[in-house]
Amino acid sequence: MSLGEFSVSDHGITFPKGYRASGLACGIKRSLRPDLALLVSERPATVAGLFTTNRVRAAPVEICEGLLREHPGEARGLVVVSGVANALTGPEGLADSRRVIELAEGALKLPQGSVYHAATGVIGPRIPVERVESHLPQAVHALASDRPASTRAATAILTTDTRTKEAAVSVRLADGTRARLGGMAKGSGMIAPSVGPPHATTLAFLTTDARVSTPGWQGLLTREADRTFNMISVDGDTSTNDTVLAFANGEAGGALADDDPALARGVAYVLERLARSVARDGEGATKLLTVNVHGAADAHEARQAARSVASSLLVKTALFGADPNVGRIACALGYSGATFETQDLDVRLVDGPKNWPLILHGTPAPGLDNGQGHRLHNVLQRLEEVVLDVQLGNGPARATAWGCDLSYGYVQINAQYRT
Amino acid sequence: MSLGEFSVSDHGITFPKGYRASGLACGIKRSLRPDLALLVSERPATVAGLFTTNRVRAAPVEICEGLLREHPGEARGLVVVSGVANALTGPEGLADSRRVIELAEGALKLPQGSVYHAATGVIGPRIPVERVESHLPQAVHALASDRPASTRAATAILTTDTRTKEAAVSVRLADGTRARLGGMAKGSGMIAPSVGPPHATTLAFLTTDARVSTPGWQGLLTREADRTFNMISVDGDTSTNDTVLAFANGEAGGALADDDPALARGVAYVLERLARSVARDGEGATKLLTVNVHGAADAHEARQAARSVASSLLVKTALFGADPNVGRIACALGYSGATFETQDLDVRLVDGPKNWPLILHGTPAPGLDNGQGHRLHNVLQRLEEVVLDVQLGNGPARATAWGCDLSYGYVQINAQYRT
Repeated sequence: MSLGEFSVSDHGITFPKGYRASGLACGIKRSLRPDLALLVSERPATVAGLFTTNRVRAAPVEICEGLLREHPGEARGLVVVSGVANALTGPEGLADSRRVIELAEGALKLPQGSVYHAATGVIGPRIPVERVESHLPQAVHALASDRPASTRAATAILTTDTRTKEAAVSVRLADGTRARLGGMAKGSGMIAPSVGPPHATTLAFLTTDARVSTPGWQGLLTREADRTFNMISVDGDTSTNDTVLAFANGEAGGALADDDPALARGVAYVLERLARSVARDGEGATKLLTVNVHGAADAHEARQAARSVASSLLVKTALFGADPNVGRIACALGYSGATFETQDLDVRLVDGPKNWPLILHGTPAPGLDNGQGHRLHNVLQRLEEVVLDVQLGNGPARATAWGCDLSYGYVQINAQYRT
Repeated sequence: MSLGEFSVSDHGITFPKGYRASGLACGIKRSLRPDLALLVSERPATVAGLFTTNRVRAAPVEICEGLLREHPGEARGLVVVSGVANALTGPEGLADSRRVIELAEGALKLPQGSVYHAATGVIGPRIPVERVESHLPQAVHALASDRPASTRAATAILTTDTRTKEAAVSVRLADGTRARLGGMAKGSGMIAPSVGPPHATTLAFLTTDARVSTPGWQGLLTREADRTFNMISVDGDTSTNDTVLAFANGEAGGALADDDPALARGVAYVLERLARSVARDGEGATKLLTVNVHGAADAHEARQAARSVASSLLVKTALFGADPNVGRIACALGYSGATFETQDLDVRLVDGPKNWPLILHGTPAPGLDNGQGHRLHNVLQRLEEVVLDVQLGNGPARATAWGCDLSYGYVQINAQYRT
């Protein structure tokens, strides 16, 4: 993209000024893959957060909500462990997470209340705190702001993910200041849009060097996460650990940028890119599914309709089989809660500049049962991203949701007995 | 079961007096398996019905709702086709279904408005009406009330089902009359509890020779279907064709039995047995999952909690792998919408007279990560029906939901390109 007003980078979480990160293996995962990530801001950052709506909440989620309430403008760091969720662990789990934070604050020489914390992995087991403790000095020593350091942190937060999820962009703000944004995410299973603010899905972390106010930054994060992370679904299971945290340390200087459209565009870009990566890397997924709904009565119905199609097991398995089984799309729209008349329904498959009609005026497009069906089968097999354009013909509202196909791989990953 | 007050039979839909049925292959299915079923009552029957809440409704659903409104006490027959859903077929589909009914009324010499109709199968294609027409005389000729005739009808309504679903029972009513009830169902995929009355799932047909009033019969069906068919889930997709129809022809005589607890018990038995069969025969399923929730704040929350666990893809895949991954159960309860405190949560696996603790006071039962986990793995592998008892510790309400595991088979059945 252009190097002018809005410039995409292949960097990650340490792209903005004043952030360093590291990631390494401390032995939580039996696989000995990286499982401990650190992120540090050179100066106090304003932090905004969104957490799972699940009633069963992991210890780190409880603790972060408290930190956010008590010290909103004083964040200096983040410690993430992967391999165990530290959920369903009772008072011992809370004590474990408090101890991990205390150890990180000690190793980083940061004041109490300035380090945030997240965890992801199996529900039930406790964090082996002594392994975190013994590896923290090494993690602190490895802190760096270059691209490999970003990727090491992005790697250490993964579980069943098959690839890292990073994004970065720089934007020119209204006052001429150039601000940078970076992000990393993990998420592959136990992923569903949750309902009712504040809501979040999976783990996602965003950094910027822009100057913001605490309420303005929280508002911006909530708004853009609602349009991105809350519109992805892999399996419909809303996790106990979902966390989105966004840090803004003001290193770029300039005026307060809360209401700057360029900053909003930057946040939107990073979150959408991370959310799409999470959907695309759904457990066992072979294709990304993007569902654009137009013509809904209102925004709520547009979102319901888009998410319903992106979450339908029958649509997802048909996609895996490259089967243009258009009735399943209509069925998922029909039970979504969105209002429309069947005869007004149009659905098209977008294939680059081309459009393949799937449903026209509420009936399957001609020829789906013979030649045209075979052609569509071949198109679906070829596409890595399948984009459906749905027209409900019932109003002005639109929304987009992202999902993935459902393959044998999903069943295999989730059915294997853990030991 | 006892031959006294409540006597279970291995018969089906023609067990009550005054009903005959047949089923045969008319060539709708490419597999040439049976796909045309008839049910006839010797005299006019009161009929009650429940239909899908999906906004995209198959033509037979539209027509049955109209019949029910206009001729509630005059049902004489039912014609069911399997292989095509006759949904998404526009005005032509409505005309096709009207023609099928007209042909059936003609072949059965029954008055207009007395024959009901249902369809199940692929969404999109039209009913090959001429094949139905040419086979109707044979279907009428084959009508019989013996057990094989019941089973032939129960076979002809199946699609991806691997077995017929039938139930029958006789009960002694308060005035001494012995009334019989019978039923058949189909359902294997595109199965989810739908929301908001009237609601129904899959195809299910019930007969009785008891005497009832139209509103009393509809009330009884609605109540008991809500507790049974609306509590099963295979894949969360609420179909365009869901239909439950219940016929009561009064052949048994005696007083009006609407409010007779024995009749309610008979309806409950037949519907629960059919609903469980549908869940057990979920596409690709190897196990039935029964989730009993106790201690919910109210009935609505109890139902939400039970359905959430029975529908969770992560619980379903863990079940397929016989993995005692208890965190996934807690997670599904947590996002169900039911209110409870994590530390009050107990979950047990019921194994005949034995109970295996899975979660106690909100934490995993001891030893799940080692020896006890292996023992539970072996128990889960052995059980054909897995019963979970959940205690939320937050009130007096309870509910039961049924589901099944998610296997490679589900993906295979639904991913295969249809041609």
